[in-house]
Amino acid sequence: MSEDKLTPRAENYSEWYNQLVQRAELADYAPVRGCMVVRPYGWALWENIQQALDGRFKATGHVNASFPLFIPMSFLEKEKEHVEGFSPELAVVTIGGGQTLEEPLVVRPTSETIIGHMYSKWIKSYRDLPVLINQWANVVRWEMRTRLFLRTLEFFWQEGHTAHATAQEAEEETRRILDLYTDFAVNEAAVPVVPGLKSKTEKFAGALHSYSIEAMMGDTKALQSGTSHNLGQNFAKAFEIQYLDQNNQLQHCWTTSWGVSTRFVGAIIMTHGDDQGLILPPRLAPIQIVIVPIFRSDEEFSLVMPVVEQVKAALAGFRVKVDDRSEVTPGFKYHDWEMRGVPLRLEIGPKDVQNGTVMAARRDIPGKAGKTLIQQDQIAAQVSELLKTIQASLLQRATEFRDSNIHEPKDYADLQNIVQNGWAYAWWCEDAACEAKVKEDTKATTRCIPLDQEGGSGRCIVCGQPAARKVYFARAY
Amino acid sequence: MSEDKLTPRAENYSEWYNQLVQRAELADYAPVRGCMVVRPYGWALWENIQQALDGRFKATGHVNASFPLFIPMSFLEKEKEHVEGFSPELAVVTIGGGQTLEEPLVVRPTSETIIGHMYSKWIKSYRDLPVLINQWANVVRWEMRTRLFLRTLEFFWQEGHTAHATAQEAEEETRRILDLYTDFAVNEAAVPVVPGLKSKTEKFAGALHSYSIEAMMGDTKALQSGTSHNLGQNFAKAFEIQYLDQNNQLQHCWTTSWGVSTRFVGAIIMTHGDDQGLILPPRLAPIQIVIVPIFRSDEEFSLVMPVVEQVKAALAGFRVKVDDRSEVTPGFKYHDWEMRGVPLRLEIGPKDVQNGTVMAARRDIPGKAGKTLIQQDQIAAQVSELLKTIQASLLQRATEFRDSNIHEPKDYADLQNIVQNGWAYAWWCEDAACEAKVKEDTKATTRCIPLDQEGGSGRCIVCGQPAARKVYFARAY
Repeated sequence: MSEDKLTPRAENYSEWYNQLVQRAELADYAPVRGCMVVRPYGWALWENIQQALDGRFKATGHVNASFPLFIPMSFLEKEKEHVEGFSPELAVVTIGGGQTLEEPLVVRPTSETIIGHMYSKWIKSYRDLPVLINQWANVVRWEMRTRLFLRTLEFFWQEGHTAHATAQEAEEETRRILDLYTDFAVNEAAVPVVPGLKSKTEKFAGALHSYSIEAMMGDTKALQSGTSHNLGQNFAKAFEIQYLDQNNQLQHCWTTSWGVSTRFVGAIIMTHGDDQGLILPPRLAPIQIVIVPIFRSDEEFSLVMPVVEQVKAALAGFRVKVDDRSEVTPGFKYHDWEMRGVPLRLEIGPKDVQNGTVMAARRDIPGKAGKTLIQQDQIAAQVSELLKTIQASLLQRATEFRDSNIHEPKDYADLQNIVQNGWAYAWWCEDAACEAKVKEDTKATTRCIPLDQEGGSGRCIVCGQPAARKVYFARAY
Repeated sequence: MSEDKLTPRAENYSEWYNQLVQRAELADYAPVRGCMVVRPYGWALWENIQQALDGRFKATGHVNASFPLFIPMSFLEKEKEHVEGFSPELAVVTIGGGQTLEEPLVVRPTSETIIGHMYSKWIKSYRDLPVLINQWANVVRWEMRTRLFLRTLEFFWQEGHTAHATAQEAEEETRRILDLYTDFAVNEAAVPVVPGLKSKTEKFAGALHSYSIEAMMGDTKALQSGTSHNLGQNFAKAFEIQYLDQNNQLQHCWTTSWGVSTRFVGAIIMTHGDDQGLILPPRLAPIQIVIVPIFRSDEEFSLVMPVVEQVKAALAGFRVKVDDRSEVTPGFKYHDWEMRGVPLRLEIGPKDVQNGTVMAARRDIPGKAGKTLIQQDQIAAQVSELLKTIQASLLQRATEFRDSNIHEPKDYADLQNIVQNGWAYAWWCEDAACEAKVKEDTKATTRCIPLDQEGGSGRCIVCGQPAARKVYFARAY
């Protein structure tokens, strides 16, 4: 299914990405413009992402629920910034059951409004707070330029929506989730994201302020990979989410919202993939280990297969696939599973049966350098070690790549140069005009203001005015 | 939150149901007509249902994927029966990104058409078969009369869609899933369903034939709780799902589809619930055990809580909730968790601290009869036993209730009488006219023709013509 080579990244990164997504059978184009079909292999990866995030949500006291797909148009209009931000992107149902609807229904682009409406019903007293709800859902935004996983009309995500008694608690929640996302990205996906504050221009429509995790892709462009928004009292006021405090006074809640989407699959592809295809971090890989029996005759097949089954049984704690197809060569299979990014391949041939060995080949290190001969009786321990090494090595490599492509510009001309092929980390006065000028001149935008800065102060790289914090400028997906 | 008593089932079953769903905080009405909000407690129950089904799907070789929410209107029109069945129920998007769409998009009522389209792209050879894909999704049907969980505009389900090389394999798959659903319903939900064949009138629009599992609710009405359809080559022909067989001949595939939805939550409520509220089968209950500390002072609280924590730790393998609220009485808490159907309550007071005991109260047996004094040092083993007993007892009780409300009518007048308050099991000639007459006269419909019949033959209970099989007639949700 994937005999042809991918277009090399250096030649055409975007072509490479599109080919990889299809050849690795992660996703396919749907018959409706801009929509995607997530194929079983891609969905299994998403399910592992879901599980890793969901476990973290539940461990921090969050619960899941489900709110409707359809939102009355009037709801979106209640928060001014919000409707301005989203109205160009709406899909609208105007006909139901053969009748024209009196009030058109919006297919949710995000759920702050409908969840706000329900919270105003449910929350009465300080005893009801905090409310910490997440939902796993599909949402629709009518995007004009789409790419599989990165930007599709319909996409899948989780959206957390919380309500709190105080401004401080809401801010703590917003930051807690930012930390949770960072931990997930770094420790599960081996994607070394930078967490930070979005600029006012780049924040969520309706938020007080937004945080994001930003990842560097293989072409050095940035990908916003998750966001956490402090909504202040904007939605609480628009939807009358109120509670009686301990003094019996009516107060507005403070709310937050936050999300990670199927876009994160794109982050994994473009952080780790190479010209041979996908490379998946072992912790999230749907198949962690593929076993390829090596045989040239039915006799050899009969000799090899019992050992293959034995090794598979010894690896019961891992996600293992045996590729025992007889209609294709081992070389074809290697290529196939390399395309799909399986972290570790085990080859077992007649010689291995004789010697009690297994040849292990790491996906992240091509050729001989990535091969290790393992004794069959040590297989589980050795494989476990190898998978940990691969996970750590992917993170290290991506971190080194990221750091070697972040530069501090000397002056504005230098910044213009740097963002052509990397990120610029520079003082910024936080004025939207300077941000706009950079975008105009270079297509780069502010990605985020990192939270742990070295301190001190400087002069804005654009206008030379005093600046209190540094920001990342980069071209982004 | 649930001080008031429910309307008794005997007084108004439908009122009882509606009140229970809201007071147990399973679901709430959405601001859009006919849509529901599934609240965290209800969603946790659905997640457990999902997990139990998903494990069974994966164990039988199925994989998950995700297909788009939007379907071009023209796709639905390709299968004649299918479009006739679904067109009165469609929600249609006519505006996207501020523009009127050239081709309106249907919000999927089910996904045979769009999945059929993709299968025609993916399937080339007999080597690609079978394709065994499931998706967990939301679907929309523009229903006029809605009830929370039972019939909502948007609902949640899994829909399996498989493609096979032969008619026999497709039929085997259809039946395998019917068995799987039966096993799930009986052994996880303690809902003693009857599996069987739907009549031609009641089958899925576009299927060759459909099977269903039918459950008897507490008011003796039937609830179709899952369906499995053999689609023959209808969709394969409409969407050109073809493969090259081993002789290099182009053949149409044989396809199936099957689903269980959030409706099943309604089945659980109405199979087990009583006038105090919900009763959940332990295997699916989000909270299996609630521990209520009994204390009348801060001192007693300090005395009791360490033991509560100890007991909780001993029950780490179960889903346990400690209700340590101090603003409400133990009696209030009992009522509260009874409403929510938690299978087992553990009470721990100062006396229990002294005696090394815990009082266990079964949700399914009210009052003293359901109470057992347990030694703290045997808590895990005893609780495990009790939960198994409750699970078995719920199934037994529901089975007895079902069987005592199924009657074999002597004649047509008897049938008319029986279906007023039970199911009639009777010979039927399988003619749609007889089915229509029963519906007209009694509102009862054919539910299913069970697969394991005693054999023999008889005369149709309606027209007296020869009949080969018996069918269940019942009023249904």
